[in-house]
Amino acid sequence: MRTAWIVSIGTELALGQTVDTNSAWLAHRLRALGIRPTRHATVADEEPDIVAVLRQAADAADLVLVTGGLGPTADDLTRHALAAVAGVPLEEHAPSLAHLHAFFGARGRMMPPANAVQALIPRGARALPNAVGTAPGIAIRLGRTPCYALPGVPLEMYAMFTGSVEPELRAATAGAVLLCRKLNTFGLGESELGALIADLMARGRNPEVGTTAGYGVVGVRINAAGPDETTARRMLDQAEAELRARLGEIVFGVDDETLAVVVGRRLAALGRTVSTAESCTGGMIAAALTDIPGSSAYFRGGVVAYANEAKTAVLAVPAERIARHGAVSAPVAEAMAAGVAARLGTDYALAVTGIAGPTGGTADKPVGLVFIGLRTPRETTVREFRFGHDAPRDVIRQRATHAALNMLRLAMTGIEGPRD
Amino acid sequence: MRTAWIVSIGTELALGQTVDTNSAWLAHRLRALGIRPTRHATVADEEPDIVAVLRQAADAADLVLVTGGLGPTADDLTRHALAAVAGVPLEEHAPSLAHLHAFFGARGRMMPPANAVQALIPRGARALPNAVGTAPGIAIRLGRTPCYALPGVPLEMYAMFTGSVEPELRAATAGAVLLCRKLNTFGLGESELGALIADLMARGRNPEVGTTAGYGVVGVRINAAGPDETTARRMLDQAEAELRARLGEIVFGVDDETLAVVVGRRLAALGRTVSTAESCTGGMIAAALTDIPGSSAYFRGGVVAYANEAKTAVLAVPAERIARHGAVSAPVAEAMAAGVAARLGTDYALAVTGIAGPTGGTADKPVGLVFIGLRTPRETTVREFRFGHDAPRDVIRQRATHAALNMLRLAMTGIEGPRD
Repeated sequence: MRTAWIVSIGTELALGQTVDTNSAWLAHRLRALGIRPTRHATVADEEPDIVAVLRQAADAADLVLVTGGLGPTADDLTRHALAAVAGVPLEEHAPSLAHLHAFFGARGRMMPPANAVQALIPRGARALPNAVGTAPGIAIRLGRTPCYALPGVPLEMYAMFTGSVEPELRAATAGAVLLCRKLNTFGLGESELGALIADLMARGRNPEVGTTAGYGVVGVRINAAGPDETTARRMLDQAEAELRARLGEIVFGVDDETLAVVVGRRLAALGRTVSTAESCTGGMIAAALTDIPGSSAYFRGGVVAYANEAKTAVLAVPAERIARHGAVSAPVAEAMAAGVAARLGTDYALAVTGIAGPTGGTADKPVGLVFIGLRTPRETTVREFRFGHDAPRDVIRQRATHAALNMLRLAMTGIEGPRD
Repeated sequence: MRTAWIVSIGTELALGQTVDTNSAWLAHRLRALGIRPTRHATVADEEPDIVAVLRQAADAADLVLVTGGLGPTADDLTRHALAAVAGVPLEEHAPSLAHLHAFFGARGRMMPPANAVQALIPRGARALPNAVGTAPGIAIRLGRTPCYALPGVPLEMYAMFTGSVEPELRAATAGAVLLCRKLNTFGLGESELGALIADLMARGRNPEVGTTAGYGVVGVRINAAGPDETTARRMLDQAEAELRARLGEIVFGVDDETLAVVVGRRLAALGRTVSTAESCTGGMIAAALTDIPGSSAYFRGGVVAYANEAKTAVLAVPAERIARHGAVSAPVAEAMAAGVAARLGTDYALAVTGIAGPTGGTADKPVGLVFIGLRTPRETTVREFRFGHDAPRDVIRQRATHAALNMLRLAMTGIEGPRD
């Protein structure tokens, strides 16, 4: 069992009224079993469409997982489509009918007649118990391909996959695993980074190396398949070591670790504190830092100094300096960082001033120009960034937020803590 | 042109490392053009898989939309697969190459050699300009079926679809339309709101009324299909009028209008200013307000007062008041609002102090307890909210952000402006 299709059924999914999160969840779980999801397919609640996609899936893959369309209403057609593809009639499954009556009975209600359809399964199929809701799942063979149909409600689906499907798949795949890891980087564009590791990316499928990018953060994915976890993990670790040797300090974290998480953990370990003074990012850096539980240990506070008067009144930026260099300038970024650090008594401070657009740019100071000041216990430095005069406002703000957090991260690299 | 397939390309999608939101977005936009998305399909960055799904899509649908796989690295294979399906070679597209050089030039960099591949398009295809990033899109016929390939980065995809693809599809579908509108509400839960409009939701498919909810904001969707735009729009307007009569002032906006957009527009119209003092929301209210272009007209600045010392030093909250009532209390919220309004000289001020969790709660002051202070030119009021002791940190922070903006919105309702 090497490949799987994941089929999602529901008009609200096909029409884009709901984002499908079940497929990503199932894909993730299949990988842990060493099964590669080669396609996700979504169709509306239309029986011919469901029949067509099930036939394609059974032909193309070693395993088919289906979610949705097992409810009690007229537009729930998965069981009918499975029966049609398998060429068998639907039959009442007595234990499932008893479960339905018990489910409603436990809630002090009679089973609505419409729910009886949920006890119908194709002849020769197995019903999978639903620990959470009403609809049993269905395990069936479509030709030679095993197929599991699960409820679309995420919590019911999770419980049924974990309780009934996963153990069977684990037995069938006996040990084989596909492990995944992502190295998160900041500092190089996707193509520049790709050039550094082109040979590793081209080396093939196992381990497989690929990249994804967003707002300046480039993730380097590693997938490694093996006959057992130890073998796969060793391949993963070797590929990670090779990538880290090539990429060096641009690697800031692994898997779900964001820049804010990494920076916060480092501050906590060093016993240091930070504050923020933001103009064009308008509070996004503070919001990112405080998104982390426990951030009050190192984040003291911040100032969103949008108007010039806020910069002078709260951050003590000299008005003369703004008049002379403009609010978007290196000297003002420096004064903002120094001002907020003094005001809130922190070891580190980040300050951002820039032009997020779409208006306000000039030939001299275009949209996308951002100065980021970093105050450390030793010094205050300012870096100038140009995020593109045609970049959208939120892209400029996000990239500036990442660039600022990354400056703080690099400033703490190699420092020994905790302070005395 | 009646049906479409939406194809997403990316190993990170197929393996479940990233949830695909592009397909739902595109499905939504296609419906507005009267085109029914009959299938979404996701495949990994494997050329044979991409070729296979493109062939199936071109056979099955009247239109194929593709996202992803247009990047500069070796695992970006969409352009190669399109050329293979169309049976043509890839050729360099000079204007796209010039755009790439200009894109990097505007950022003060040389184009990395790897990016040159992004200027390759299949012979006979058209390049679609990318206003936001590097990769041009591709418009091509696969057999008789029109196909558009767009970048996978959401912001680039949105811009390209809206700027290049939608106008062509609108011309091609000329006439029949499916119009959609969403009324955004704040103040009632989804089921309470649903009970007020149950008869309208049950009335059938045209117009179709449904609800979606997130972080306290409940959207009421209306879909209306008609043979022409005038007919469909009339149905939409009638349904909207009926919904507004039922829902009253909880309706704050339409379609993409957020609370921050609505509040900002109102402040600008009144010629008033606002500032923020945030503890548990950590800058999220300031970030939401400054996400709007032109917000400098009414947003003066804010203070993220995370540590108690920040509340006393920057916002002049009396230390005695914190000691007596605790930092999370109505008197402190009131003092924070008054303090930031005085400090920054604004007409309005919002202040938030609360317990976002997951730790820090007590029996008396549980996780989810939030006090929101609102300073207006007339008075300062404080409201107490309980967002649930078991709610996740980001849910509590988002709901508090929405609740604060909504308090400001309601305070400005019925006020005549501009001030003298």
